[in-house]
Amino acid sequence: MTENTQVLFKSRPTGWVDASHFEVVKTPMADPGPGEVLVRNIFMSLDPYMRGRMRDQKSYTPGFELGKVLQAGAVGEVIASNDPALTTGDLVEGRLGWETYTVAKAELVNKVDGKAASLSHYLGVLGMPSMTAWIGLRNIGQPQAGETVYVSAASGAVGQVAGQIAKMHGCHVAGSAGSDDKVAYIKDVLGYDAAFNYKTAASLDQALAASCPEGIDVYFENVGGAMLDAVLLRVNPHARIVACGMISQYNLAQPEGVKNLSTIVGNKVRMQGFIVSDHMDQKPAFMAEMSGWLAEGKIKYREDITEGIENAPAAFIGMLKGENFGKQIVKIADP
Amino acid sequence: MTENTQVLFKSRPTGWVDASHFEVVKTPMADPGPGEVLVRNIFMSLDPYMRGRMRDQKSYTPGFELGKVLQAGAVGEVIASNDPALTTGDLVEGRLGWETYTVAKAELVNKVDGKAASLSHYLGVLGMPSMTAWIGLRNIGQPQAGETVYVSAASGAVGQVAGQIAKMHGCHVAGSAGSDDKVAYIKDVLGYDAAFNYKTAASLDQALAASCPEGIDVYFENVGGAMLDAVLLRVNPHARIVACGMISQYNLAQPEGVKNLSTIVGNKVRMQGFIVSDHMDQKPAFMAEMSGWLAEGKIKYREDITEGIENAPAAFIGMLKGENFGKQIVKIADP
Repeated sequence: MTENTQVLFKSRPTGWVDASHFEVVKTPMADPGPGEVLVRNIFMSLDPYMRGRMRDQKSYTPGFELGKVLQAGAVGEVIASNDPALTTGDLVEGRLGWETYTVAKAELVNKVDGKAASLSHYLGVLGMPSMTAWIGLRNIGQPQAGETVYVSAASGAVGQVAGQIAKMHGCHVAGSAGSDDKVAYIKDVLGYDAAFNYKTAASLDQALAASCPEGIDVYFENVGGAMLDAVLLRVNPHARIVACGMISQYNLAQPEGVKNLSTIVGNKVRMQGFIVSDHMDQKPAFMAEMSGWLAEGKIKYREDITEGIENAPAAFIGMLKGENFGKQIVKIADP
Repeated sequence: MTENTQVLFKSRPTGWVDASHFEVVKTPMADPGPGEVLVRNIFMSLDPYMRGRMRDQKSYTPGFELGKVLQAGAVGEVIASNDPALTTGDLVEGRLGWETYTVAKAELVNKVDGKAASLSHYLGVLGMPSMTAWIGLRNIGQPQAGETVYVSAASGAVGQVAGQIAKMHGCHVAGSAGSDDKVAYIKDVLGYDAAFNYKTAASLDQALAASCPEGIDVYFENVGGAMLDAVLLRVNPHARIVACGMISQYNLAQPEGVKNLSTIVGNKVRMQGFIVSDHMDQKPAFMAEMSGWLAEGKIKYREDITEGIENAPAAFIGMLKGENFGKQIVKIADP
């Protein structure tokens, strides 16, 4: 009998997530029922939105269930199929589990091409985070040539792509991140015009003034809190705030207060939230455009790969603290 | 020589405005130069946005100048004209002054019809505040039949109209105000479906839950601060927040922090500011529609008229505290 290593959701965090909220267990590998497939998971995605699913409150995705295996976007290989649409050896991506083997409904996974791209790419630059950047800029940010686009968490899974797309639009692009290495990457590799380390900046306001000397037309918002407050003092008339995430607030029992919202009125700012899964009709267009950019070398993308499913909890906790450098992925098995 | 009673901007407030920030003086009435008219002011509008013009910082309108007469929307009678477009006896509205007589450029005032409506209406239900409600709902709120629209400061100059327009769209309309008399007016005269007194409510959250049992689809935002925070916990997916004003914050040296902004992401909320003066191309359409509604009795509108230009500072201070009941107007002279 083959063993399945699983990470269960053991208890609900109220503040910072720690190892006690997870439990790693070994269970027998299950068999697929009718219409189901058994997937050998290869790469798994860790994303900030998962912190929201740990809360016991209404959210845009249902909460994780206590005592059950945690869920994640993942890619893997079909090793048994009870559905005519998929056969053994097919590579698929979908919402699978924090585990080595997942039984999934065949209709809920999608075949991917293991020759066209590295499998991990389907979780990052050709997956949900990159499409989040693409949709957010296209539908809400709408950057125009000559405008200033500012991206927080700019070396992260979404931020890296947001800034590079904005550069292609002819914008002045600035970003921030939490280490000097990340700042160097943002400028030297991703080609941002300006970047700063928000942890060591004397003040966020001064750092934004220096990085965005003509004010901010589009803010790609990944962090919230004090950063949003600082941005609100630097927005230009008709600025757009792409409200993608607010990771700085997710682990606070009491979120920080944002004080400068009245600049939204006077500057006619549009701040708008979105969820990428509402826009799956645009996935083919995204895949076509992003694959082309990737092939042409117009998009760079850094991944931070942690080895071993048993190390997923630590990787997730580290990501929430900003310790990852690039898109956080867990390698569960060799392709 | 005819005397002009003027209210000057004496000193800049940092917190609450008080009488010491104004000075009432008597000066000689000026003569109009070429292209100018002399206007005998009749009614003057007091509006919350003026608090913003008292600040020494970038805003969407230039700040008031210290030592100079304060400006306001007003209606009056032309009593001398050096411009062929206007003659003595014409009634006009425009940005005039907190004073009994104003010399203005003829091209910057508009003739109004003193027979078609009460002159004070051009400052309220047929003027800037009402058009603010009309534009905000049309361009940003976009209420659909069956949706819930919540209006704060619902008996105020803008709020009264916003709620009544929303009712015409077939919405469930709820409002709040700061006295039981205002709450009764909102429900009994304006026809809102639900209303509450935010000062005496046990909690804003419970009051919103009771008034908006199916959540909030459109929030017409006039107050900001704690009210916005409470609304953010009750927004439905794809809600729109019409960011018209945040009067609760204008007199605070340090604004309140808004903690619940992350619901904007998950609920895909659009929060958008606007300034009515950007939309003057739509004024003819607004005037036609609102005049029709008024004639048909579909729109009710309450004014709070203070007599005498020398009482304008007290009326303005009272309005910032919510003491007015309906659109705040100062009557400077008989028509």
